[in-house]
Amino acid sequence: MSKLRFRISMSLDGFIAGPQQSVDNPLGIGGMRLHEWVFPLARWRAMHGLPGGETNASSAVVEESLQNIGATIMGRNMFGGHPGAWSTAHPWMGWWGERPPFGHPVFVLTHHPREPLHLEGTTFAFVTDGIESALRQARAAANGKDISLAGGAQAAQQYLAAGLVDEMEIHLVPTLLGDGERLFDGLGADLHGLKPVRTVAAPGVTHISFSRSQG
Amino acid sequence: MSKLRFRISMSLDGFIAGPQQSVDNPLGIGGMRLHEWVFPLARWRAMHGLPGGETNASSAVVEESLQNIGATIMGRNMFGGHPGAWSTAHPWMGWWGERPPFGHPVFVLTHHPREPLHLEGTTFAFVTDGIESALRQARAAANGKDISLAGGAQAAQQYLAAGLVDEMEIHLVPTLLGDGERLFDGLGADLHGLKPVRTVAAPGVTHISFSRSQG
Repeated sequence: MSKLRFRISMSLDGFIAGPQQSVDNPLGIGGMRLHEWVFPLARWRAMHGLPGGETNASSAVVEESLQNIGATIMGRNMFGGHPGAWSTAHPWMGWWGERPPFGHPVFVLTHHPREPLHLEGTTFAFVTDGIESALRQARAAANGKDISLAGGAQAAQQYLAAGLVDEMEIHLVPTLLGDGERLFDGLGADLHGLKPVRTVAAPGVTHISFSRSQG
Repeated sequence: MSKLRFRISMSLDGFIAGPQQSVDNPLGIGGMRLHEWVFPLARWRAMHGLPGGETNASSAVVEESLQNIGATIMGRNMFGGHPGAWSTAHPWMGWWGERPPFGHPVFVLTHHPREPLHLEGTTFAFVTDGIESALRQARAAANGKDISLAGGAQAAQQYLAAGLVDEMEIHLVPTLLGDGERLFDGLGADLHGLKPVRTVAAPGVTHISFSRSQG
């Protein structure tokens, strides 16, 4: 069965976004620092039509994370208030505008019903009846491929607490944000069967992978 | 000048001890899991008079952390309520009993004046006039060697906030404690000049080093 895969950048003190998040600064103060490891990569630059860049231990990790994904699930806040906010906020995903970088169906968790949004190569569907429904719909749409859980924290915490995440990768960035949104709030001491399977040390980041089935 | 060096085991969610710490369980619920990476090491076993054990990527890190230390500073709680508590509580440091594992002067931060405690190979001095005084005394006693800041969290936070830590190594353990004592509480987003200089991925732990002078 297709897996639900979750990866996210986190600070040494456990934050995935800094304080004072807003539509204009959805990553909060200092939050952009969590994503700086990815910008120099040739793979990331190519995704955004930029030449050059470097290859390091993160390159294979990024490449792997992009493989075999047939659908994406995200929370309402990550979907963003407007395309401009998305663009600055989620460098990892690329910008979201006329041409979202997904190229597969995206399911947005929300309490507000809304008609699907069709953009070039990507359709955003809005799911109002919960995380399990979103996962079912994403699985059907993924056509045998895996599903990417793109965040944010709240959506991630719900899927983690329900034991529905099959693979998790933390991109741990050795910096402090001091305040903001914590990834592991409210989960207690329980990773719900996820066990560490691999650690990759790379410039400016350490990739720590967990899996439900191995370890 | 001799450096103040601090290393500590921390969970993925930022805790260095679990909830419900007590004299009988000073590491709190689940806290022992933070130290399990060290027990299988031949180097650690040899320190405690045990044969066998393994050598892995952590071995050199442990070896290095033990080199060139001429004095230790610790908080009152880490000094412990009684030798038994210490023994179970701080496997990293070895037990503390008739023969403390330090072999050099130890300075304990406390509000309660107390005569020095002389044990085999180690003298514990109790410092009541603050962290800078303790550092001065430790530096004088270290005789040109470095000083180990052994914790706990409160002592570490004070030295970090004052910008007095020259080297920090986080032994990041990919597990959740969910609650307990956080290392980086109250420090804001400021590592006070400490910059990441090295990451070592090892079985059950990732060692992330910071230094004031390099990076």
